[in-house]
Amino acid sequence: MEINLEKIGNQAKNAAYDLSLVSTEDKNKILLAMANDLRTKTDQILLANQKDLNEAKGLVKSFVDRLTLDESRIETIAQGLEQVAQLPNPLGDVTNGWVNHAGLQITQKRVPLGVVGIIYEARPNVTVDAAALCFKSGNAVILRGGKEAFNTNLKLVEILQTTLKENGYSKDTIQILTDTSHEVANKFMQLTGYLDVLIPRGGAKLIQTVVQNAKVPVIETGIGNCHIYVDQTADFEMAKKIVVNAKCQRPAVCNAAEKLLIHEDVASKYLPGIIAELKKNDVEIRADEAALEILQDSAIPAIEEDWKTEYNDYILGVKVVSSVDEAIKHINQYGTKHSETIVTNDYKKSQQFLDQVDAAAVYVNASTRFTDGFEFGFGAEIGISTQKLHARGPMGLEALTTTKYVVRGNGQIRE
Amino acid sequence: MEINLEKIGNQAKNAAYDLSLVSTEDKNKILLAMANDLRTKTDQILLANQKDLNEAKGLVKSFVDRLTLDESRIETIAQGLEQVAQLPNPLGDVTNGWVNHAGLQITQKRVPLGVVGIIYEARPNVTVDAAALCFKSGNAVILRGGKEAFNTNLKLVEILQTTLKENGYSKDTIQILTDTSHEVANKFMQLTGYLDVLIPRGGAKLIQTVVQNAKVPVIETGIGNCHIYVDQTADFEMAKKIVVNAKCQRPAVCNAAEKLLIHEDVASKYLPGIIAELKKNDVEIRADEAALEILQDSAIPAIEEDWKTEYNDYILGVKVVSSVDEAIKHINQYGTKHSETIVTNDYKKSQQFLDQVDAAAVYVNASTRFTDGFEFGFGAEIGISTQKLHARGPMGLEALTTTKYVVRGNGQIRE
Repeated sequence: MEINLEKIGNQAKNAAYDLSLVSTEDKNKILLAMANDLRTKTDQILLANQKDLNEAKGLVKSFVDRLTLDESRIETIAQGLEQVAQLPNPLGDVTNGWVNHAGLQITQKRVPLGVVGIIYEARPNVTVDAAALCFKSGNAVILRGGKEAFNTNLKLVEILQTTLKENGYSKDTIQILTDTSHEVANKFMQLTGYLDVLIPRGGAKLIQTVVQNAKVPVIETGIGNCHIYVDQTADFEMAKKIVVNAKCQRPAVCNAAEKLLIHEDVASKYLPGIIAELKKNDVEIRADEAALEILQDSAIPAIEEDWKTEYNDYILGVKVVSSVDEAIKHINQYGTKHSETIVTNDYKKSQQFLDQVDAAAVYVNASTRFTDGFEFGFGAEIGISTQKLHARGPMGLEALTTTKYVVRGNGQIRE
Repeated sequence: MEINLEKIGNQAKNAAYDLSLVSTEDKNKILLAMANDLRTKTDQILLANQKDLNEAKGLVKSFVDRLTLDESRIETIAQGLEQVAQLPNPLGDVTNGWVNHAGLQITQKRVPLGVVGIIYEARPNVTVDAAALCFKSGNAVILRGGKEAFNTNLKLVEILQTTLKENGYSKDTIQILTDTSHEVANKFMQLTGYLDVLIPRGGAKLIQTVVQNAKVPVIETGIGNCHIYVDQTADFEMAKKIVVNAKCQRPAVCNAAEKLLIHEDVASKYLPGIIAELKKNDVEIRADEAALEILQDSAIPAIEEDWKTEYNDYILGVKVVSSVDEAIKHINQYGTKHSETIVTNDYKKSQQFLDQVDAAAVYVNASTRFTDGFEFGFGAEIGISTQKLHARGPMGLEALTTTKYVVRGNGQIRE
């Protein structure tokens, strides 16, 4: 299917402009209407999803699982829309204000970004989540979902667009690319003048492709080679609980732990117990020489590549270190600046770790799994930024806004 | 000269890490020492500058002027360093803090970006300005200045590096690319993994080259096709003063006005007087049909291209519009989202203009020339962002920082 990206971009720009004039109350009403319409049209969604599932036979089980919708999952998606309707709206907030030397009244005000592009994989829930968050924050969105979810995504967007139209709003507020080729995706990443930001949501490969090819501003998200450093003063039970939680509670996500660093003074005392617990979850251990000596047959040797790798799986790299300094240095060298935690009872070391580790979220005595928009209390999440520009860490509605300076004068000119 | 960008990037990363541990007080001391050393070494700087000037013979006068240093300009640069030393430091500020549902104490804290790249043209003062702002905000900087200022820039950086070394800090905190070829510049723009942000400072061509070629995060700066809309309720004297100031006070800068839109009800009454004043400054007027009829021989016809153009010169496009809506639509279509002003005494129209014009700074009854870090009271400026991500409008020290989440727990894991 031939598509015209400039035309789509222009439609989005116009829709964004119109949307910037809509009140929060009216936007919330639409979100609730969308939730209802998704519920009413559950059959249509399941039918479209079945088409995708028929083509997905033979793909990896976890992949098919993420692609699959049922009544209860659609209900969850609808509830998600209702939750977004209830979130406070950051638009219009005055973030700063003062009078300058010339008597100009300057206020800095929160406004929508404009047009947001989202590139993601075959998770149909992202279609509705992302559309809802962009809509609530006053942005037009152009979605580009994975081709395996093509029919489901199209149906979901069709339903949302119908709700928009029926309530007198432009359907171009929420658009989806109907051509899922790599060619079109590449052109989409280079749609300067139309896209104010592009947010990739998915695995490392997708994100790297976007970073390498995009010419529009990108927010890099969600690559997490997260570490736990267990200091010699750590409480053993706490350390064990945190390691097991951070590794096993949901290993496929970006805030799961991938590496365990442990101080040499407690390595032989603590490691066997921690690893035994991990082994109950069939975690494969890749250990450095010192850890291997302790763990023997419970581990295999780690190679250099391991220290850089986000496994997203039941695999953990383990390394014995001689100090908090060595742990910090290792993390800053190999980490992806996502989430890093120290388990310790030493005050000075906790402060040193928090100050010197360069990451979006740094923890003392807690699981890395908390780096998440919902866990942080934002009520929603458009992704977890691992870059330093614009937003860092879990991104809620505010990350989908920018500011503008509003300046009121009475004839001031520059001397 | 063969240069190794990865090596330079790595040196910058290490220097940034060390710098993040330096106190504000110590950084301010270094800035003052740098100012003194520049003064002491004025002769060396002038000698290097003379080399560049010898090669610059035959280049445009305004270009050579920007390249030229003398004792008084070096004194101004030194004073700039002292001013940066006196600025409040945003590092360490807690921008947010709360306890989440699991009892985690979350604080969001301002930290340096890390490594900042600056690409700029042949203005040697930018070398020291940018280095000082990056240093104060805890960032290592890699500079890439215009080749015409090569000897001057190298000398300036050598002096700053010597001050760093003499005070026990790494000279890699401030580096400059000693190869000014386009090839190296292109590779520099793609130095992912090392540059946390790249800020181009210069004309439209430089900025477009960076946006098109960069793979690292960029902050787009300083393209300004700024408009003044004179409403039918505007005070004539105020309108005239603002137009003349915004166009003529310094036409080569990005916040100068490039277009005048005027309401049809006052066009024939106001335009001749405004244009007569502009003509005293030899401003060329490019008018639409309606304005041309009024201005006759004082103007030439505008073409479509004019409405998109940032002249940076004594040229003004003039267009007659029939309403504030038409003015807003024109600005949102042709503007570069920099600075836009309405001259009016109508409250509703002033609010509509402020709400609906999409720009970094929107004004009522003031010159666009105020969009500037110093005029806004930031005490410094690293550039004026015309993008929506990270920073929008004049960027002071805060734009050179990011945040990190610091999370303190007592063994929390995710359920």
